[in-house]
Amino acid sequence: MKKLTVLGVTGSIGTQTVDVVKHHQDQFEIVAVSAGHNMTALINILDELPIQHVCVIEASDQEMLRQKYPERHIYCGQEGLLKIAVLEETDIVLNGIVGFAGLLPTIEAIKAHKDIGLANKETLVVAGHIIMPLVKEYGVQLLPVDSEHSAIFQCLHGERHKDVAKILLTCSGGSFRDTPYEELKYATAKQALKHPNWNMGAKITIDSATLFNKGLEVMEAKWLFDVDYDDIEVVIHPESVIHSMVEFVDTAVIAQLGSPDMRLPIQYALTYPERIDLTGGVRLSFKDIQALHFREPDAKRFPAINLAYRAGRRGGSLPCVLNGANEAANELFRKGQIGFLDIYDLVEKAMNAHEVVDDPTLDQLLEIDQWARDFVYKEV
Amino acid sequence: MKKLTVLGVTGSIGTQTVDVVKHHQDQFEIVAVSAGHNMTALINILDELPIQHVCVIEASDQEMLRQKYPERHIYCGQEGLLKIAVLEETDIVLNGIVGFAGLLPTIEAIKAHKDIGLANKETLVVAGHIIMPLVKEYGVQLLPVDSEHSAIFQCLHGERHKDVAKILLTCSGGSFRDTPYEELKYATAKQALKHPNWNMGAKITIDSATLFNKGLEVMEAKWLFDVDYDDIEVVIHPESVIHSMVEFVDTAVIAQLGSPDMRLPIQYALTYPERIDLTGGVRLSFKDIQALHFREPDAKRFPAINLAYRAGRRGGSLPCVLNGANEAANELFRKGQIGFLDIYDLVEKAMNAHEVVDDPTLDQLLEIDQWARDFVYKEV
Repeated sequence: MKKLTVLGVTGSIGTQTVDVVKHHQDQFEIVAVSAGHNMTALINILDELPIQHVCVIEASDQEMLRQKYPERHIYCGQEGLLKIAVLEETDIVLNGIVGFAGLLPTIEAIKAHKDIGLANKETLVVAGHIIMPLVKEYGVQLLPVDSEHSAIFQCLHGERHKDVAKILLTCSGGSFRDTPYEELKYATAKQALKHPNWNMGAKITIDSATLFNKGLEVMEAKWLFDVDYDDIEVVIHPESVIHSMVEFVDTAVIAQLGSPDMRLPIQYALTYPERIDLTGGVRLSFKDIQALHFREPDAKRFPAINLAYRAGRRGGSLPCVLNGANEAANELFRKGQIGFLDIYDLVEKAMNAHEVVDDPTLDQLLEIDQWARDFVYKEV
Repeated sequence: MKKLTVLGVTGSIGTQTVDVVKHHQDQFEIVAVSAGHNMTALINILDELPIQHVCVIEASDQEMLRQKYPERHIYCGQEGLLKIAVLEETDIVLNGIVGFAGLLPTIEAIKAHKDIGLANKETLVVAGHIIMPLVKEYGVQLLPVDSEHSAIFQCLHGERHKDVAKILLTCSGGSFRDTPYEELKYATAKQALKHPNWNMGAKITIDSATLFNKGLEVMEAKWLFDVDYDDIEVVIHPESVIHSMVEFVDTAVIAQLGSPDMRLPIQYALTYPERIDLTGGVRLSFKDIQALHFREPDAKRFPAINLAYRAGRRGGSLPCVLNGANEAANELFRKGQIGFLDIYDLVEKAMNAHEVVDDPTLDQLLEIDQWARDFVYKEV
């Protein structure tokens, strides 16, 4: 029986993790969860599963839950989050928290010798230089839950690291894949939230439209798979059937394909290196697929990927600035306060204004993250 | 240093094996080869590599080679073939002999504890029920050299057999992929020999046009990967970029892709489970590929696949009849003595006329193979 702490249980990754666990209660048990403000969703989960440890953000929600579930342990705030991340009985922490907030609990969980299922890509983007040595030091497994990185992880299974020639990261192109440059200026959040293939949370769907999501994934891949930026290539693949690929030194390419169902990478992180039935999973039907397409990313319409390569190659604190500025700009765009193309301008301006710190500490990263956000807010 | 016996060294697989070995002489050495009648090609190879053991078919060729290479061991005929297949110094026998003739040396090599690189699919089609238990008994590795089966083998690497849901065998569709049924009647060998993607020997290129090659591959996959016929699906994929795929129980599909270069599966069989540079190998370029297509096989135009499923499902001696009849009909078609659609009729007639022997012995298979060929010759 594998015991899980699920961080961000009411989010897209969290609820799908609950779904996976519910279908395999002989193999998995959720012992602890954290949630933000969606108490209705949280209560639904707590009513269905006897989860003993629960952490919320607001003290008032904590009080409400204590009344409702007097026999369970209800925690609150950052302190509570760190507590359930290191719980004695937990084997694996599945981190579905959105954004930079996922970093600290990941670090504490690693130090407590927990395996990590990582859906929170910002953790590695910002602090890969801190996380990866810790993963090595504490001998834990860092299992990707992003569909692309899970795909790469599956393609690499059983292969030698030295035989890898290139990571081919596929990209749907997002909501504005075929939108002309002239129209992007007036693109709205509502339009951007209509992702062609995947049903995800709001922040990541906007990031998919800007392609910052793919940029963050490039940086995430660099850390997860220990490859040079020169050996990571983004391939636009509108159908999202191929979730990513690895090219090896003998020119063989191994690819992972599947339906757009996040439960697959979630479940694979829990069952690795084995596989089990995906309850209700839809099998690919190649006669229905008919055709798969590929093209290069358009750097003019979507500068996010080049900004990410620039930040990643420079390293130090620059990825933290890109990420913080992007989180702030993404939010402002969703609120209708800035235009679509402003997101790129604001992130680039923040990057240009920042004096890069090499090998930043966690405290420095927290500061720089805040600086990048404030920079963006002030510009608007 | 891995030491090889290469059977059929002047053929398509043989010459490409020589090419792989020449580029990695620090890792591989050819200690023995067999050839048919192409003495020019054989002499070229023998002049370039100091191969000590050589087997030919004709006594006159043996004599000629003994004169030319007095210091080497020159053998002749079936006896010689079996001798170089079990040579003390050989680690792996790469069997590139075309057709049923490859069976006996494979069996002897396994019994001599040699690993087998198998490009000769007829071996498993006809005698999988004899070969596979021997492979297990003698603890040798049977490494596929067909591009499709090598692809599947690569996709399965590191996975559990029980997690496999389906083998997806891709198929270019051959030279007559888009030829209407009415025109197939008048299709010539010359037309059939123009394969759209692969440059291979004559027999296999005709088999690709009839789709008997794919039918044989279905049966080969059944034995190599121990799956039911219900779990093997043929997918027409005109570009031949995806060399085959495996679907797992969690709905994940792992695919192997590459350029149409047989040296890759040959080399992988030699380096497995590792990989090394493929000298002169062409890397896939997805921006150049642009699109990959898929469709179902057309059973009306190409009945070979259904005939193969029928033979495979019935088992016993029926696959031997299909294979023998097809080899004879393939040859008659190449000689212009029968039409393209006659190949199917002749194979089906032979299958219908045969009383299936369950669990046939090697001697019975040799007899039945001859019967099937004679049946076809008599019909014409």
